Amino acid sequence: MKKKYFSPPCGQVRLTGGFWKQYQQLIREKTMPYQWEVLNDRVEGVEKSGAVENFKIAAGESKQRYYGTCFQDSDVGKWLECVAYLLASQPDAEWETRADDVIALLGRAQQNDGYLNTYFTVAEPGNRFTNIRECDELYCFGHLAEAAVAYAQSTGKKEMLQIICRYADLICRIFGTGDEQIPACDGHPESELAFVRLYEATGEQKYLEQAGFELHIRGAEPYYYDIEWERRGQKSFHPHLQNEKPSDDKGYDQSLCSPQNLRAPVGHAVKMGYLLAGMAAYCQYVDDPTMWEACQRVFESIRKEQVYITGAVGSTRHKEAFTAPYHLPNDRAYAETCASAALIFAMRRMLNNDPNAAYADMMECTLYNGLLAGISHNGTRFFYVNPLESYPNEIAVDPDYQAVKPVRQPWFACACCPPNLARTVADIGEYLYTVQGTQVYVQLYAASEASFALENGLKIKLHQFTDYPWNGDVRLEADCVGEYSLFLRWPEWCERVSLRIDGQEISIENRPSAGYLPLGKHSGKMTVEYKMHMEACFMEAAPAVRADAGKVAIQRGPVVYCAEECDNGPQLFRLAVDPQSSILIEEKACFGAPVLKVLNAWREGQDGGNLYRRYQPISQAVSVRLVPYCLWGNRNPEGRAGEMTVWLRRREK
Amino acid sequence: MKKKYFSPPCGQVRLTGGFWKQYQQLIREKTMPYQWEVLNDRVEGVEKSGAVENFKIAAGESKQRYYGTCFQDSDVGKWLECVAYLLASQPDAEWETRADDVIALLGRAQQNDGYLNTYFTVAEPGNRFTNIRECDELYCFGHLAEAAVAYAQSTGKKEMLQIICRYADLICRIFGTGDEQIPACDGHPESELAFVRLYEATGEQKYLEQAGFELHIRGAEPYYYDIEWERRGQKSFHPHLQNEKPSDDKGYDQSLCSPQNLRAPVGHAVKMGYLLAGMAAYCQYVDDPTMWEACQRVFESIRKEQVYITGAVGSTRHKEAFTAPYHLPNDRAYAETCASAALIFAMRRMLNNDPNAAYADMMECTLYNGLLAGISHNGTRFFYVNPLESYPNEIAVDPDYQAVKPVRQPWFACACCPPNLARTVADIGEYLYTVQGTQVYVQLYAASEASFALENGLKIKLHQFTDYPWNGDVRLEADCVGEYSLFLRWPEWCERVSLRIDGQEISIENRPSAGYLPLGKHSGKMTVEYKMHMEACFMEAAPAVRADAGKVAIQRGPVVYCAEECDNGPQLFRLAVDPQSSILIEEKACFGAPVLKVLNAWREGQDGGNLYRRYQPISQAVSVRLVPYCLWGNRNPEGRAGEMTVWLRRREK
Repeated sequence: MKKKYFSPPCGQVRLTGGFWKQYQQLIREKTMPYQWEVLNDRVEGVEKSGAVENFKIAAGESKQRYYGTCFQDSDVGKWLECVAYLLASQPDAEWETRADDVIALLGRAQQNDGYLNTYFTVAEPGNRFTNIRECDELYCFGHLAEAAVAYAQSTGKKEMLQIICRYADLICRIFGTGDEQIPACDGHPESELAFVRLYEATGEQKYLEQAGFELHIRGAEPYYYDIEWERRGQKSFHPHLQNEKPSDDKGYDQSLCSPQNLRAPVGHAVKMGYLLAGMAAYCQYVDDPTMWEACQRVFESIRKEQVYITGAVGSTRHKEAFTAPYHLPNDRAYAETCASAALIFAMRRMLNNDPNAAYADMMECTLYNGLLAGISHNGTRFFYVNPLESYPNEIAVDPDYQAVKPVRQPWFACACCPPNLARTVADIGEYLYTVQGTQVYVQLYAASEASFALENGLKIKLHQFTDYPWNGDVRLEADCVGEYSLFLRWPEWCERVSLRIDGQEISIENRPSAGYLPLGKHSGKMTVEYKMHMEACFMEAAPAVRADAGKVAIQRGPVVYCAEECDNGPQLFRLAVDPQSSILIEEKACFGAPVLKVLNAWREGQDGGNLYRRYQPISQAVSVRLVPYCLWGNRNPEGRAGEMTVWLRRREK
Repeated sequence: MKKKYFSPPCGQVRLTGGFWKQYQQLIREKTMPYQWEVLNDRVEGVEKSGAVENFKIAAGESKQRYYGTCFQDSDVGKWLECVAYLLASQPDAEWETRADDVIALLGRAQQNDGYLNTYFTVAEPGNRFTNIRECDELYCFGHLAEAAVAYAQSTGKKEMLQIICRYADLICRIFGTGDEQIPACDGHPESELAFVRLYEATGEQKYLEQAGFELHIRGAEPYYYDIEWERRGQKSFHPHLQNEKPSDDKGYDQSLCSPQNLRAPVGHAVKMGYLLAGMAAYCQYVDDPTMWEACQRVFESIRKEQVYITGAVGSTRHKEAFTAPYHLPNDRAYAETCASAALIFAMRRMLNNDPNAAYADMMECTLYNGLLAGISHNGTRFFYVNPLESYPNEIAVDPDYQAVKPVRQPWFACACCPPNLARTVADIGEYLYTVQGTQVYVQLYAASEASFALENGLKIKLHQFTDYPWNGDVRLEADCVGEYSLFLRWPEWCERVSLRIDGQEISIENRPSAGYLPLGKHSGKMTVEYKMHMEACFMEAAPAVRADAGKVAIQRGPVVYCAEECDNGPQLFRLAVDPQSSILIEEKACFGAPVLKVLNAWREGQDGGNLYRRYQPISQAVSVRLVPYCLWGNRNPEGRAGEMTVWLRRREK
């Protein structure tokens, strides 16, 4: 199998402590078990899921009625994938048995021809593949397939992979350019990536080819989404699509052109992210320079114009979409948790084509901020939408904030985000390294022990000791009997690093353009002491971003901070900070994370008086306390909302 | 007829030049004739009206089909009312003939029992008064009635008044608390005010009583809007109401309680304004202290918490409504032109209960800013929604701005605003004075000649010479053979005034609490030289207004200014002004209005570079050019949009 770079899977990169271990344990001990209860409809007072029951109905083992959206199956897929990653790092017979039971249930729900989708088996039999634009059949397939690959990799058990390959084979027969085939792909990208993963797991060339077919057919003429829409009587499945003619909004599902011709991200942000991940994954194995150039163009537009400082994407709730360059409202941000996950997947796949630290910088930013904001500190409450400022009083009265929840929710009718976040965090080990030949790129810093084979078959051990992201010091112990070359990512947030190899100070000047410090060839043991000087600093947005004009955000290392009402009182918008102020660090002050304190700040304006009056420069000196954005909304009494803002007005002293 | 105060009508207060004369001439020469063509469907390429044709259909004189919304009749009413006011100040045989023809048509369209509504006559015969919550029958009646009163007053012709009184009598029979009557009022307030006006014009006590009935029945139990909703099969007339049960949103039409118990403005802003005008008008003739207290409470909440600096109201497009105190987004402001007109009507009626300058201050602010922004300088293009900042690039991509048009429109499917603005401006003379006994309050300053009878029957002449609002100097010549007392409003925007009476300097210290300078008793001729010192100044909002935090607006006299792209380049949000800066005045630089120039300002930020980067204090010194907000959007090529903002970021030097 030809490949460019690979990432050692999470079973070979175990977290040993610190930030990510803590989050992975949260997923293991709280989130994953909680989601299991929810998927089985056993949690009182939360949105019903029906996801497991639907499989029982499809298997003929339940008389209940189908429940939920048409893509309910994907929640089961994501949960299984999460379990797979957790088992990879820590065996657990009880959960493995539960997962095996679910897999067996999937097998019984599978139709004779391999078809496996509960919605169209139970609720709309006979309508399979009649609305591939909207009904997410291949999207659901993709999530099940990703789980099957992960489960096989973690446990060595192939049952689910066999089930899914039967379904995949059916899809390969039904979708294609042959006379009797459907010449189109799913409206929701996901199976592109999944087919590449099936190829990685099985070596079956046809799966890679199917991914290629899906990637090249999107947007092709005649426009199949219109054809099927005509056939089904010009109806939309989803009411919010209002029976629109699909070609009236080809951007929505990135079908305005062939993906190779995309110039920028467009449409539904999760779809865009999954598509980008699929495009990049495909390029790992197929030499398709125009596809790879499209990946780079889309990435560059996201990075330079269309991403929040938290690494989140998707500026509007309307069709959950990208909008236009520099349109990044903070209060009405959509910034879906799933879109963050999708961007992270895409970045890892782009790194597997080309270890450019820009991809890792974005991956890191989105992981620490946009993604993790989606989960509560207790692991059982979730954000779907992740605004960068939240004013509960306004959210309550202005329907333009209807998508924004001021507190994390126990579950959702459309529950894509919680299990997506969980599976991403469970798999975090896989994000640490990118390898080619005997070259190892360190993409993320996290206390961890890795042991994996280089392409020459020799095993390398990599042991990271660090309190990253709260501290920029990393000690890395490497060991391999043969020769190896390490490349340390120099994060974009970091202005200065220092380095010792085996106790020897190495002089370092500027950040290399690709963003990695090459340590040269070594063999045997080696100890690297890498210090990324980390200070809290004031960030600004490009001047074209109206929402951030006159404002600064505070960042320390990869972690974006925010101000909350519980620390700073209400009306956070009255605060202004001096961007020359010193910033104090209170170590371990918020769930183990450092809290920052901007010393020179003001609370502006005078209460009372007329609504409009002559300006008077009245303010009170204050300091502003900041916590990591990913931890916001965790310190109010259950269900109580508080204000939050990432961006603060600046005011020169 | 017992009354508190009265306003001499516009026929007795003629504009002689300057600001308002110019706008009145614009209405006379451009807007009113243009609207006539539109109402007759003779303007190519604009939204069809059908409003006149509908009356022809109802009269059996046309075979066309009913066209437009259910409240299309009101556009004809407002147009007639506008013509009436214009005729009062300048006879015009041609337009009077046209108006007489329309009135005759109304007479022929009237049903035998007096009913006069084209929608329910033509489109839904048999369904009269079956959806009084949504279908605006009494609202349309009210507008026709206001026109009838104005036309009788201006021309002395009673035909329309007779037609409308027949309809009014029918309404009085149908609506009431008797056994066979409908115990409810229209969902859209307007007939309350109209019945008071019919009372003023005819002296018929029953019309005043009908106003009282409508004002006291609103919100009563059993909740009639639910009853009729059940009767008609739980259906909404308007799709956007989504068949909601009316009692699920009683605030929408101010029926959450009896109007006497209102504590603050609520719901649809135009409805709220019309209701307030009706309440205040009723209180002019009926001693109803709880009703009057409600007027004051609603006003105080508007003034202190819920009005834009432009005098506009209604913060959200969702049901075109008030939201909550201090929620005043500038870019997504609804600030409907009609809501400004409604507030102006209400303020005049409140002044007629109690000459408190606070009402006149708001009336003046809304007239010069929120209302007039609704019309183009050429008189034939209109805003329905009046944001305080407009960024066309964002409006184009973010559906939350769907109500905001970045350029004035030739007409609307729902065309309430243009004729409402026109009739208000045509009637401006009526807003200048409030009179009781021999006391005359000067509410507005405008070059004008007034001549009207005091309550003792003696005529007073009042001649104002002024270039207000571009200059705060007013010379007022008064003459009356008997005794009279003048009260000059001291506008809230003005910090210092000086006064000479018959050449004699009068020493003046502080602004009296009611906001008027009492000039004492005089008889015979008197010349007043009143100087309201007028300087451009920086205004701020109360600190609770998030949208204006860190920002200042520039105001001069009653006129709010704004910055436009055509003067200051794109990305206006990059500008910051020094609130201590001097402000230069360029006289007559924009359609005869002074232009302001803030000398100390900066254009902030550096182009290029990353989307997010460490803050660097980079800016370029600039000056900022400002034009009156009411004139914005007039200097781009036809149809071209440009940025605009009222609020500018402030930055201390």
